[in-house]
Amino acid sequence: MAAVRVLSDDVGASARSSREAARQLATSSAADRDAALDRIAAALEADRDQILQANALDVEQGAALVTRGELTQPLLQRLDLGGAKFDATVEMVRSVRAQPDPLWRTQSATELDTGLRLYRLSVPIGVLGVIFESRPDALVQIASLCLKSGNAVLLKGGREAAATNQVLAQTIATAAAGSGIPDGWITLLQTRDDVRAMLSEEESIDLIIPRGSNEFVRYIMDNTKIPVMGHADGLCHVFVDVDADVGKAVRVAVDSKIQGVTTCCAAETLLVHAQVAERFFASAISEFARKNVVLHGDERTIAAAGGTGVVAPATEADWSTEYLDYVLSVKVVDSLKEAIEHINHYGSHHTDSIVTENAATAVDFLRRVDSASVFHNASTRFADGFRFGLGAEVGISTGRLHGRGPVGLEGLTTYKYLLHGDGQTVDDYEGTIRKPYSHGSLDTEWPAAKGSGVLGSKEEEGGGA
Amino acid sequence: MAAVRVLSDDVGASARSSREAARQLATSSAADRDAALDRIAAALEADRDQILQANALDVEQGAALVTRGELTQPLLQRLDLGGAKFDATVEMVRSVRAQPDPLWRTQSATELDTGLRLYRLSVPIGVLGVIFESRPDALVQIASLCLKSGNAVLLKGGREAAATNQVLAQTIATAAAGSGIPDGWITLLQTRDDVRAMLSEEESIDLIIPRGSNEFVRYIMDNTKIPVMGHADGLCHVFVDVDADVGKAVRVAVDSKIQGVTTCCAAETLLVHAQVAERFFASAISEFARKNVVLHGDERTIAAAGGTGVVAPATEADWSTEYLDYVLSVKVVDSLKEAIEHINHYGSHHTDSIVTENAATAVDFLRRVDSASVFHNASTRFADGFRFGLGAEVGISTGRLHGRGPVGLEGLTTYKYLLHGDGQTVDDYEGTIRKPYSHGSLDTEWPAAKGSGVLGSKEEEGGGA
Repeated sequence: MAAVRVLSDDVGASARSSREAARQLATSSAADRDAALDRIAAALEADRDQILQANALDVEQGAALVTRGELTQPLLQRLDLGGAKFDATVEMVRSVRAQPDPLWRTQSATELDTGLRLYRLSVPIGVLGVIFESRPDALVQIASLCLKSGNAVLLKGGREAAATNQVLAQTIATAAAGSGIPDGWITLLQTRDDVRAMLSEEESIDLIIPRGSNEFVRYIMDNTKIPVMGHADGLCHVFVDVDADVGKAVRVAVDSKIQGVTTCCAAETLLVHAQVAERFFASAISEFARKNVVLHGDERTIAAAGGTGVVAPATEADWSTEYLDYVLSVKVVDSLKEAIEHINHYGSHHTDSIVTENAATAVDFLRRVDSASVFHNASTRFADGFRFGLGAEVGISTGRLHGRGPVGLEGLTTYKYLLHGDGQTVDDYEGTIRKPYSHGSLDTEWPAAKGSGVLGSKEEEGGGA
Repeated sequence: MAAVRVLSDDVGASARSSREAARQLATSSAADRDAALDRIAAALEADRDQILQANALDVEQGAALVTRGELTQPLLQRLDLGGAKFDATVEMVRSVRAQPDPLWRTQSATELDTGLRLYRLSVPIGVLGVIFESRPDALVQIASLCLKSGNAVLLKGGREAAATNQVLAQTIATAAAGSGIPDGWITLLQTRDDVRAMLSEEESIDLIIPRGSNEFVRYIMDNTKIPVMGHADGLCHVFVDVDADVGKAVRVAVDSKIQGVTTCCAAETLLVHAQVAERFFASAISEFARKNVVLHGDERTIAAAGGTGVVAPATEADWSTEYLDYVLSVKVVDSLKEAIEHINHYGSHHTDSIVTENAATAVDFLRRVDSASVFHNASTRFADGFRFGLGAEVGISTGRLHGRGPVGLEGLTTYKYLLHGDGQTVDDYEGTIRKPYSHGSLDTEWPAAKGSGVLGSKEEEGGGA
C-alpha cells in the first residue's frame, strides 16, 4: 500500500491541504465513504499487533509517569488499548459506518414559483480541528465520525498516547486512500506548538472541538477566532423534589455521582426539597457512605442528615466546584423555583435531573432549567451520544449555537441552499410586473440527491468543460 | 398604558436584565407571543403620527447630511418610513406573527429503553445583540422575529434613525407588556460606546448579529468572544456555462448586478465560458451599457467584447472587490472546473449562480461551489429570507455553523434534550446487569408540547413549591 502522509510538520500548510481535501471529500459518494470505513476496520484488525506494540510502549512510559506521580492510575487505564478495548474500538468504526448517511439530506424543499424550486441540503462543515485526551480509541472514533460526515480533520491527541496515535492515524489514512478518499483528510499534529498554530488558521479551519480539562478548554476558547464547540465545565445537579419517590431519588443521585465519577455529566451538587429532606437523607446517607462519597452540605443538610460527623460544612465555593471525585455538595431548598434558580445560576448548562412523581412539576423543571440536557427520574450519566442513540459523539456542547448537548454526526454537518430556475429574475417579482411568490412546500427531495444520497455517476461528474 | 423602559444607560445591567427576561420569555405561550405581535401591529398603527413625526425629524437631519456630502441619497431614502413603507412595516409584523411557532417543536424522539424516552425540542437561543443599518423598518422586523422566537434582544440602529428608533422601540415594548411579555426583552442601545460595551457581555449575550458595512462587521467579529452570525463580504458570481441559453444568461446577469446594486447578494463578478463568450457578449454588452453598468474585464473579455473602448482592463484586485455599485468584473474561463475554483478562491461563500441548460453541469456546480446559496438559472438576488419563504430574515450568514444563508425564525432557535425516565441508572445498562438500549425512533411529539406548542396552564405552572 502507498505510504500516505499523516504527520504535520507545518500546520499552516496542513490546514490549507485539509481545506482542499475537504472540498473533494464533500462530494465523495456515501458508498466510497462507507467502503473506506470498512477498509479502516479491516486494516485496524490486520495491524493489530503493530498497534498494540506501539500502545505497549506508551503504557510502559505511562506507568513510569504514574510511579513519579505525574499520571493517575485511571488515566493510565484509559491509555491501554489492549484486550476487549481493541475489539470495541474496531466495532465502533463499524457502528459509525452503519449510521445513515448524514450528507445531501433534503432538509426543506420549497417552490418559490412554478419552475423555481429551492432545496436545503445537509453538507459537511468542512475542516475540523479536534484536540482530545490520552485515549487512543478517541482518535479512531473522531476520525470515523469525520470521514462518515465528509469532514477533513486535524487531530491532536494527548502526548502520553503519541506512539499509539501515530500508528492508528497511519493505518486509517492508508486504508481510506485505498477507497479513493483524498489524501490530506486526516492529519496528526505532534506538539503543543502545533495546537497554538492551529488556533490562528481561521481561514482554513471551520470549527475547533477541544476535549479535556476545564482550564485547557477555556484556554482554547480564549485564544482563537475559530468557533469552538465543547464545554469547559460539567457542573450537573440532581434535584430531589417534594414529590420524589425516595428509592428512585437515592438510586438516581448515587448513579449520577459515581457511575463515572471523572466525567463531565457526573452530578456535583444535590438539591433536596426541605419537605422531603429527612426522609431522603434517612435512606441516602448510608448509601453514599457505602459508596465512599463525601458530602459537603449546607446547615440545613447537616441538621437533617445527622450532624457534621456525617456531612462536612459546605462553603459558597462548593456550589461552583466540579469535583470530578467522590465528593458531592448538598443543599436543602424550599421550592422548585429555588432549585431552578440555583441550577441556572451556578450550573454549567450541561445536564440536570429532577426526581419527582409529579408530572407537572417535572415538565416545569424540564422547561425552565436552561441546560443542554434536562432529565426527569433518570441519572445525569445518560448524557452521552452513544446512550442517546446518536451512534457516537465527538463531544458535548454547552454552547447554545449549532450543536448542543452530545454531538454526533448531524452536528458535524451544516447546510446549503440550492435553487433551480429557468432564467428567473427578481425584477419579474419585485419590479413593474410583480408576480407573486407561491412559497409552497414541496414533498420531494432534491432530485439529484437520489440513491446513496450523493451523485457519483460519470455523466454527472462530467460536462461543461 | 404603563411606561416600559427601553433605553439602556448601563449596558452590563441591561444585558443581565435581558438574560432574566429571556428565561421568562422562553416559557411564554405561543398564544401570548402572538397576541403581543397583534398588539404591536395595532399600536404602531395607533402611534403612526407620533412615529412619522420622529421620522420626519430624522429625515430632515439626514437631508442636511446629504447636502454636506455625509450621507448618500439612497441611504436617505432608506431612512424615510413614510407612505407605503409604513404600511408594509406593520404588515411585516403580521406576517411574522402568521408564521408557525418555532418553539417546543419535537425535532426527534427516541425510546432508549421501555420507559426511558428522549426528546429533542426547539427552544430560543436566549439573548441576542443586533446592530443594524439606518433603516427604521429593520428595528420592527428584528424585534418581531425575536419576540416570535422567544429571544430577548439588545438593539442598536444607525444613529441617523435615532429619533424614529426610540419611538418605535417604546411603542413595541409598551404594546408587548400589555400581553404579559416580560419587561426587558427589548432594549435600545444609544451610542457606539454601548456597542463596544455589549461586545464584552459574553456571560449574558449568546449571539451578535451585525448588519452593515464590510469593515463594521469585521470589526465586530474581531472584537468579541460572543458568537457572531452574519457576513462581512458579499462577493457573488454568475457563471455563464458553455451550454447556457444566452438570453437567460443576459437576464440573470443583469438582474444579479442591478436589481439591488448595493445589496450583499448583488453579483460582482461574471465568469464566462470561453466557448460561449463571443455569443454572450454580442447580446450582453449593449444591455449592460443600457443599464449603465461599467465592465472591468480580463484580456480575453476585452478581445471577445470589442476592445478597451467597451470594457476597462481588470486588475487582480477586481476579483476581490465588492463594488456595491454599477460596476462588474468579467473573466473568461476555459472550464466549469476553472469557474468553480475561481469562485471558491475569490468568493465570499455567499451566493453564486450558474446559467446552463446542461442539468449534469448544473448539479456539479451546485455541489462543488462552497457557498451558502448556489443557484441554477436564477438571479443571485433571490438570496433573501422573504424570497426564500422564511417569512423574514434577521440577516444572511456566510459562516458554516448554526444558521447559513438567509436566517429566519428557525435560525433564532437552538434545542435542548429532555429525558423522561422512572428512576433508571446508567449502571443498569453498563454495570453488571447490562440491559441493552433499544434506541427505537418514536413517532410522537413531546407529550407536554401540545396545542400551541407550549404548556401554560395553571396546574403546570404550579406544583413542587
